[in-house]
Amino acid sequence: MTTTIRIIGIDPGLRRTGWGVVDTLGNSLRFVASGTVTSDGDMDLASRLCQLHDGLAEVIHSYKPDEAAVEQTFVNKDAVATLKLGQARGIAMLVPARAGLKVAEYAPNAVKKAVIGVGHGEKQQIHMMLKVLMPKVVFKGNDAADALAIAICHAHNRQALSSRLAALAG
Amino acid sequence: MTTTIRIIGIDPGLRRTGWGVVDTLGNSLRFVASGTVTSDGDMDLASRLCQLHDGLAEVIHSYKPDEAAVEQTFVNKDAVATLKLGQARGIAMLVPARAGLKVAEYAPNAVKKAVIGVGHGEKQQIHMMLKVLMPKVVFKGNDAADALAIAICHAHNRQALSSRLAALAG
Repeated sequence: MTTTIRIIGIDPGLRRTGWGVVDTLGNSLRFVASGTVTSDGDMDLASRLCQLHDGLAEVIHSYKPDEAAVEQTFVNKDAVATLKLGQARGIAMLVPARAGLKVAEYAPNAVKKAVIGVGHGEKQQIHMMLKVLMPKVVFKGNDAADALAIAICHAHNRQALSSRLAALAG
Repeated sequence: MTTTIRIIGIDPGLRRTGWGVVDTLGNSLRFVASGTVTSDGDMDLASRLCQLHDGLAEVIHSYKPDEAAVEQTFVNKDAVATLKLGQARGIAMLVPARAGLKVAEYAPNAVKKAVIGVGHGEKQQIHMMLKVLMPKVVFKGNDAADALAIAICHAHNRQALSSRLAALAG
């Protein structure tokens, strides 16, 4: 008794927040949509956070995912960059949570491992594996591709978890 | 021709976000209210961000401030702490912006300078000056006191700005 679960993956960033929606039924994956929400670098920070909020809220309203997954992005550069990322990430987690979705978090190497089999790799490998896993996939740019990879990572993890629970119950 | 402007100051933090509301009319300041919105450390991050969102939204709905000011908090400890702070700060800026308020940002030493006259000082000095500036002030804890100091900093800065504009116009 399995039902299709729709997952939104989100790759947060202040300038560009990628999103990708996939349907999962048992072990199968189906591409639904992907895109990028952007904020205007000439506007003040509060307005930019509103742009990210409104863009993500619209995506969730349009595609009505059941669950969300956000990359546990870590600190690339300096503290200023980390603070900026944190602000965007706060919005990326708030929007699905306020819409009533459970929000899972995955570390970048867990995402890579779920998609390309190892915890490190090039962007190119992720793009290629997205096409292998979902032949009808469409994405424009790295942020949308990363967001799809996060959604797939969550699909694998929730499936593995429910198999383990079923084994325990059975 | 001056009108009373109501300002909310916000001192963001994932565990505790302080807020303080003051009315300003020309050079005068009046205390309105202060408090702290907390999130439950046992809950997941997305739920905690919702708690901060809902708490701040309730404060803004209750006191209807005209403008908001948020501390440009900088990085105290490690990158993990900075990311957490960024997430809370994203919510602290989003909520007033979505309510249609302009959101100003001030560095911690600008806030201290506005309240105690110098850019560095003890918490105790800030508490004392809050009582001097607003004899009826009530606050519980450092987060609410810091938020009131941020609101006062914005009151001074917007007043200074409007005086300069008036001088230019006159």
